[in-house]
Amino acid sequence: MDKVKLVIVGGVAAGASAAAKARRCNEDAEIIMFEKGHDISYATCGLPYYLSGTIPKRDRLLITDGRFFKQRFNVDVMTRHEVLAIDREAQKVTVKNLTTGDNREEPYDKLVLAMGASAIVPPLPGVELPFVFTLKTLEDTDRIFTYLRDKNPETAAVVGGGLIGMEAAENLAQKGCKVSVVEFMPQVLTFLDREIAELVHQHLKYKGVNVYVSEKVTGIEERDGRGWIKTDKGREVPADLVIMSVGIKPNTKLARDAGLHIGPSGGIAVDEFMQTNDSNILAAGDCVESMNIVTGKPTLIPMGSAANKEGRAAGANAMGRQIAVKGFTGTVIVKVFDLAVAKTGLSEREAVSEGLSPLVTYVLSGDHAGYYPDAKELRIKTVADKSTKRLLGAQVIGAKGVDKRIDVMATAIYNRMALDDLLQLDLAYAPPYSSARDPVIVAGAIGQNYYAGDWIPVTPAELHQKMEKGDNFVLIDVRTPRELKKRGIIPGAVHIPIDDLRDRISELDPEKETILCCGVGLRAYVGNRLLVMKGFKDVKTLTGGINSWTYPKERYPI
Amino acid sequence: MDKVKLVIVGGVAAGASAAAKARRCNEDAEIIMFEKGHDISYATCGLPYYLSGTIPKRDRLLITDGRFFKQRFNVDVMTRHEVLAIDREAQKVTVKNLTTGDNREEPYDKLVLAMGASAIVPPLPGVELPFVFTLKTLEDTDRIFTYLRDKNPETAAVVGGGLIGMEAAENLAQKGCKVSVVEFMPQVLTFLDREIAELVHQHLKYKGVNVYVSEKVTGIEERDGRGWIKTDKGREVPADLVIMSVGIKPNTKLARDAGLHIGPSGGIAVDEFMQTNDSNILAAGDCVESMNIVTGKPTLIPMGSAANKEGRAAGANAMGRQIAVKGFTGTVIVKVFDLAVAKTGLSEREAVSEGLSPLVTYVLSGDHAGYYPDAKELRIKTVADKSTKRLLGAQVIGAKGVDKRIDVMATAIYNRMALDDLLQLDLAYAPPYSSARDPVIVAGAIGQNYYAGDWIPVTPAELHQKMEKGDNFVLIDVRTPRELKKRGIIPGAVHIPIDDLRDRISELDPEKETILCCGVGLRAYVGNRLLVMKGFKDVKTLTGGINSWTYPKERYPI
Repeated sequence: MDKVKLVIVGGVAAGASAAAKARRCNEDAEIIMFEKGHDISYATCGLPYYLSGTIPKRDRLLITDGRFFKQRFNVDVMTRHEVLAIDREAQKVTVKNLTTGDNREEPYDKLVLAMGASAIVPPLPGVELPFVFTLKTLEDTDRIFTYLRDKNPETAAVVGGGLIGMEAAENLAQKGCKVSVVEFMPQVLTFLDREIAELVHQHLKYKGVNVYVSEKVTGIEERDGRGWIKTDKGREVPADLVIMSVGIKPNTKLARDAGLHIGPSGGIAVDEFMQTNDSNILAAGDCVESMNIVTGKPTLIPMGSAANKEGRAAGANAMGRQIAVKGFTGTVIVKVFDLAVAKTGLSEREAVSEGLSPLVTYVLSGDHAGYYPDAKELRIKTVADKSTKRLLGAQVIGAKGVDKRIDVMATAIYNRMALDDLLQLDLAYAPPYSSARDPVIVAGAIGQNYYAGDWIPVTPAELHQKMEKGDNFVLIDVRTPRELKKRGIIPGAVHIPIDDLRDRISELDPEKETILCCGVGLRAYVGNRLLVMKGFKDVKTLTGGINSWTYPKERYPI
Repeated sequence: MDKVKLVIVGGVAAGASAAAKARRCNEDAEIIMFEKGHDISYATCGLPYYLSGTIPKRDRLLITDGRFFKQRFNVDVMTRHEVLAIDREAQKVTVKNLTTGDNREEPYDKLVLAMGASAIVPPLPGVELPFVFTLKTLEDTDRIFTYLRDKNPETAAVVGGGLIGMEAAENLAQKGCKVSVVEFMPQVLTFLDREIAELVHQHLKYKGVNVYVSEKVTGIEERDGRGWIKTDKGREVPADLVIMSVGIKPNTKLARDAGLHIGPSGGIAVDEFMQTNDSNILAAGDCVESMNIVTGKPTLIPMGSAANKEGRAAGANAMGRQIAVKGFTGTVIVKVFDLAVAKTGLSEREAVSEGLSPLVTYVLSGDHAGYYPDAKELRIKTVADKSTKRLLGAQVIGAKGVDKRIDVMATAIYNRMALDDLLQLDLAYAPPYSSARDPVIVAGAIGQNYYAGDWIPVTPAELHQKMEKGDNFVLIDVRTPRELKKRGIIPGAVHIPIDDLRDRISELDPEKETILCCGVGLRAYVGNRLLVMKGFKDVKTLTGGINSWTYPKERYPI
């Protein structure tokens, strides 16, 4: 085989995958991997859980080391070595030994860039204070761990409610800190639609976490030995420990300086074979941009799962293979205390901003058969294209079974399934695992009913707008009196329990626009069918029911 | 709308679904549902769990009742009414009131048959004894429940190791019985391949259940107040309680007597719209045959999930709709004590009997990241078509995360994905839910490696055959000495740990056929690559490794 020399820059996820795969493709290659940090191939995604002791030993985060890579794969691993520059013409890199400070040059035939991403640190007053941290690398984590052990902070603030922010909040709370999350946007987990994120807010609060959304941090201070965060609303949030988790950015300086193309999303531009615009240079992992296969547009997918896949392809292709990474549906999942929160594909908001006309369905169901013990409530929101029926995205939230449903949805979206085709899936059913009607199947059935013309949806936002405009319509809430007492009613709604609707139909005007509301949408749909078949001219169903209604409610009875 | 009259025969799963959906399609129809038993719409799949008290109250099994159906859907439900005959020409059925004994005739415009299936009771000596039961209906369950309560049997035997047999065994054991399972075939759960079923056998034994396979029950006896099962091997199995769970058969007599077509698999023949050969008669649920979309052949899918789907379509189509049920991948899942055992699509054995040439992969992995607490071992076996790459089937077994992986596989198979395309799926990753390399992704990667020519598989059966024939090859076990001590070694294997292989390559003959073995296949594959690239002419990897080796092993060191 070719005695090609492969240099890999970065040794965490993508870099390590590239090295191992390259060796399996070419036993005779010389492979050298430079890593700036102390360690290679560690469990970045496990770092927050080490802080709380959920992962009890630091060793467990270290998946493998240079010695293993030498033994198993004959790869030379150089940690504490930073690659400073690429000379594309001469095909060599300049590497600094961070221990000795010496620079050297390393020639390459093929180069794989896997520098990852870095935490963004906004230039805020006080951001340099010793109790302010980012949580991205093992070194970051060691610093926070030491601080927690030595200072035992009473309060902690997490700036930025993204994935790392949520994991930091949970683990710091488990460590005993009183935690506040401060988020600039109107919601945490901005990839979710608002009403789903609202459920996360509620859960965080239920778990004792303060949630401040639509608030911008203006500075961090230390006073009398305590830390404080100040926001643009004049709030002072106690914060003896601060995690800055406002986002990450791909590490592209090395590539940019070498004249490699950077894509519109800010990552190194690569084709599906992880090839940059230099035929000898490939790139993989958090530093590249990837393809979103729903939108067909480049995007950042800073996930360990993507890094492994891309690194593997880059390593193989550097050795002359042609392994494609076809793209991503943008699947994310995060544990937020007792909830799992997941999304794949597009949110409703993203679908609209892509110029699509989304059909939204909501399913509220047990994760498994209700008669079998320990069933937990699970919600699915699907977003489909109204005209083409194509499933565009799904959001799932609940205590159990969330990862299953999102993975089925991700597989469905990858295969460009239509929403109503979900109904055809033959999903595994036994009472401990699912219901005879799995919530994914139910989502498909709701879609099929829509495309058959059996119901017309009105979203909470549309209904709210109609109410504001003073439109002439009647809103009928078909839930039971008990549900209304417990959860309130939308202002102006008339109460007719679903099982009375058939008998009380004469009370209603078939000529008038009629909107039906229930808990999630099933009973409203049953009523919708009844009224339409009894000659009502204009009937709609509130999608998601009272469960997705984030506007004001009234008590019932008043 | 049409004032059509719909008669539904059977009110458990498919019948009840048909009734509710028919009403939502036609408010003016007259809908009448006859059910032979006392109850409608009860949780058939929950019955075994009621015996052990896992489902503590009988009420929980009763999902709904006739009163609800009348109120919500204006459906007349007649329980304890058996439909005896169909007069297709006159469009009427003869119905017997089982309470009064009276017969009456009921005309129909449309008829939906949903009679379900019945437990098969083989004509064995002693099968009529009072401690011998089937476990199919609520009435069956009530009888067993009463017997357990009154007689407190010490021992129980389950005849037939299918889905119901496994659930019965677990729940009777939890109730305190010493349980034996007697199965005529060489394995329980005959839809699984042998080496996967072997894991179920081991687990049953570990849980204190006696497993007797390849034994035919010849009779049941009572002696001195104790029950005994006798087998063709001369065994006497103590059995104070006997569950006959040898299989079920579709209830087709009514249809057959009326001249409706019965399909080759023994169920009522219907098209994808659940239409029989009489345009006014539809059928759904356990009494029909369904399409297996992998083989394209009709098959029985006696699952609650299928019954609901088919009933819904039948109810709609009886009202003039055209809802298709496109078919099933044959997904099953069953809880066997601490394990979940699942399958979708074809087993290796079924693929061979379909005339296909299957590529088999095995993945042994945690259900989630190993560094995050409580990860449990999960095994996936995939079966793909060697030439077309099409994923044909998957079997998954483990303590957690089994239902997720089988549902992803079912979705993949429905979409006719290629095995190597699994690698492209963007599955949800965070440490509590999965690994950076989800086992499904790993299966895809193994497939891609195969199709790239990176390894040639030899199955345990093929290797065993080569050993029997005395073929001239060398078998190298690349595991660690510790693993060999713990789990033994295949007779004749040479031990070279994977990390020593590169240095000890000169000990081996590159001209000789060389087969590599490890735990599951990953390290053997790494060694396979190394040897091939070093010029070895004929190298193969034992798929599934020592984990799938069901033939004799030797102790190591000897």
